[in-house]
Amino acid sequence: MPDEPSSFQPSCPTPLRRHETIQLAHGGGGALMRELLESRVFPALQSDSADARHDSAVLDVNGVRLAFTTDSHVVSPLFFPGGDIGSLAVNGTVNDLAMSGARPLHLSVALIIEEGFELALLDRALASMRAAADRAGVLLATGDTKVVDKGKGDGLFITTAGVGVVDHDLMIAPASVRPGDAVILSGDVGRHGIAIMAEREGLSFESNIESDCAPLNAAVLALIDAGLDLHCLRDLTRGGLATALKEIALDSGCDIRIREGDIPVSDPVRGACEMLGLDPLYVANEGRMVVILPKQEADRALEIIQREQPDCEPRIIGFVKEEQNHRLTIEGGLGVVRVLDLLSGEQLPRIC
Amino acid sequence: MPDEPSSFQPSCPTPLRRHETIQLAHGGGGALMRELLESRVFPALQSDSADARHDSAVLDVNGVRLAFTTDSHVVSPLFFPGGDIGSLAVNGTVNDLAMSGARPLHLSVALIIEEGFELALLDRALASMRAAADRAGVLLATGDTKVVDKGKGDGLFITTAGVGVVDHDLMIAPASVRPGDAVILSGDVGRHGIAIMAEREGLSFESNIESDCAPLNAAVLALIDAGLDLHCLRDLTRGGLATALKEIALDSGCDIRIREGDIPVSDPVRGACEMLGLDPLYVANEGRMVVILPKQEADRALEIIQREQPDCEPRIIGFVKEEQNHRLTIEGGLGVVRVLDLLSGEQLPRIC
Repeated sequence: MPDEPSSFQPSCPTPLRRHETIQLAHGGGGALMRELLESRVFPALQSDSADARHDSAVLDVNGVRLAFTTDSHVVSPLFFPGGDIGSLAVNGTVNDLAMSGARPLHLSVALIIEEGFELALLDRALASMRAAADRAGVLLATGDTKVVDKGKGDGLFITTAGVGVVDHDLMIAPASVRPGDAVILSGDVGRHGIAIMAEREGLSFESNIESDCAPLNAAVLALIDAGLDLHCLRDLTRGGLATALKEIALDSGCDIRIREGDIPVSDPVRGACEMLGLDPLYVANEGRMVVILPKQEADRALEIIQREQPDCEPRIIGFVKEEQNHRLTIEGGLGVVRVLDLLSGEQLPRIC
Repeated sequence: MPDEPSSFQPSCPTPLRRHETIQLAHGGGGALMRELLESRVFPALQSDSADARHDSAVLDVNGVRLAFTTDSHVVSPLFFPGGDIGSLAVNGTVNDLAMSGARPLHLSVALIIEEGFELALLDRALASMRAAADRAGVLLATGDTKVVDKGKGDGLFITTAGVGVVDHDLMIAPASVRPGDAVILSGDVGRHGIAIMAEREGLSFESNIESDCAPLNAAVLALIDAGLDLHCLRDLTRGGLATALKEIALDSGCDIRIREGDIPVSDPVRGACEMLGLDPLYVANEGRMVVILPKQEADRALEIIQREQPDCEPRIIGFVKEEQNHRLTIEGGLGVVRVLDLLSGEQLPRIC
């Protein structure tokens, strides 16, 4: 394995411009969003920021370990190849629960609808939610509907919250990551973001690129049921694979090294990224995760993920290093190692 | 008590126009919203509609009875006398949990922010959420932030979901309402809606009208702790007192009779309603509820509510009749009885 690149890189190198108003990039999953959350949102929440930053909070309720999470969905366009705002809203929350190792049980559904929105489209989104809930094995238990004046919304926003139970004693979080751990990626990356982008911009590629939007809970529960010592899980949404791993590096303190050649990117996604000037490592996914666990358990984990998600190609893409500099590095094809950092904003706004 | 008015009124007399797109009135808490929910939203949720229609779903999770609810908040303006979108988002969800007799524990917070929104206003709303959470004794456990392009939102929307525990065996729901039950109103009505309306339209009245926005959980838990046999609770949000009671009449089958002279409306609210052509019985509140319980327990309930909310004037305003025609009637000052029905849409859009 080659040496580290020589220039020292602080954990968040881009000097962030001070803003007085919200920028689109504040929602993009990059450094600006992290700063917004850490300086303003987390202090208002009572949980400590490490908890709040994780995908779900895990709470003790009368002796039951309950996972609780929420996500607003503002994806544009509402319907895209491989999914729509309805399936996204269900899978996004199911996956956030799964990332804490919880068994997702119940979802709430809050609709903010713009005056003039077609009822036929609402029906389509609701039917898609129901189908996604059935697939993931969760119940849509409660809901709310609000309407805003024309021009004060964008068709339909859906906020889901979810509750699940944590039936194990694992502490699945960045703090559990250990040097030597293997980093597994559950499948190819970049499809969701490119599918949205293509639909939004009216681009067509040689082969149709479909979002990877899918529930991850079955695979996670199978890993837990197999008794594997999961250290950390993270789904690869806004900011993609690189952002997820960089955040784990920042929050755990550990350095993480991945190998470019081991990261599956489909040819159509690679071609689209080249054409659009996007880095697939930072493109959002909605049905992919990284699994960090002791390396001696990695092969077993690969088998289980492959069995639960036969259309994916899980791979070991890297490992956790001995060094504790909060760095994420990637080894390219020619052995060159470069640092991956948080982007300041986002490559693609309103991706979820 | 005078006779019923002679003309028969079906439960939902306004013939609803068929729409193909969402109207503002679909969010107003009236008949059009009820139709939207019953024909489109509830069928997509798995719970049966009686459950879904109630303020919270009550779920069994590993032996714990968990209440779960959500509300999006799109109030305009964001800040108004007596409250703001932050306090509203916390109290609205706390109160929905309380209406199922649950002890509210944890809230999630999902922000949809419009590009260009002032960070100082975001800070103000977040600080208000935190203060409201502290007052109600709940934790803001988890959150999410999305940003939408300028012109695709309206400053700030906040969706909260809440979980609480149900520690009693009461079945607090319209189905438990019985003939002879007393109907208690927890305080004066109409302040929230009029405060919003005045702020929105730049109206000024002789005395400043402040929203009644407040948590109701302490009063509800005190009623339960006293061992009272609560049959139904409902907070008086969109659609106000008349809509809440009419919905209980529709869902329970029972007729409910209230007396106009016993319903407290402050002089400034009454004056503003006259000026604006609004009926205070249909104006939204955010810190008022009706309590329906056996009449021999009504005085005890009044004492407890008064003790928990010293600045309110709880009153017995009516009772549940023997008849089972889903009707809500009101006896006016001269003994004239009239029927109160769901409004088709809303008096005031974006009130919460």
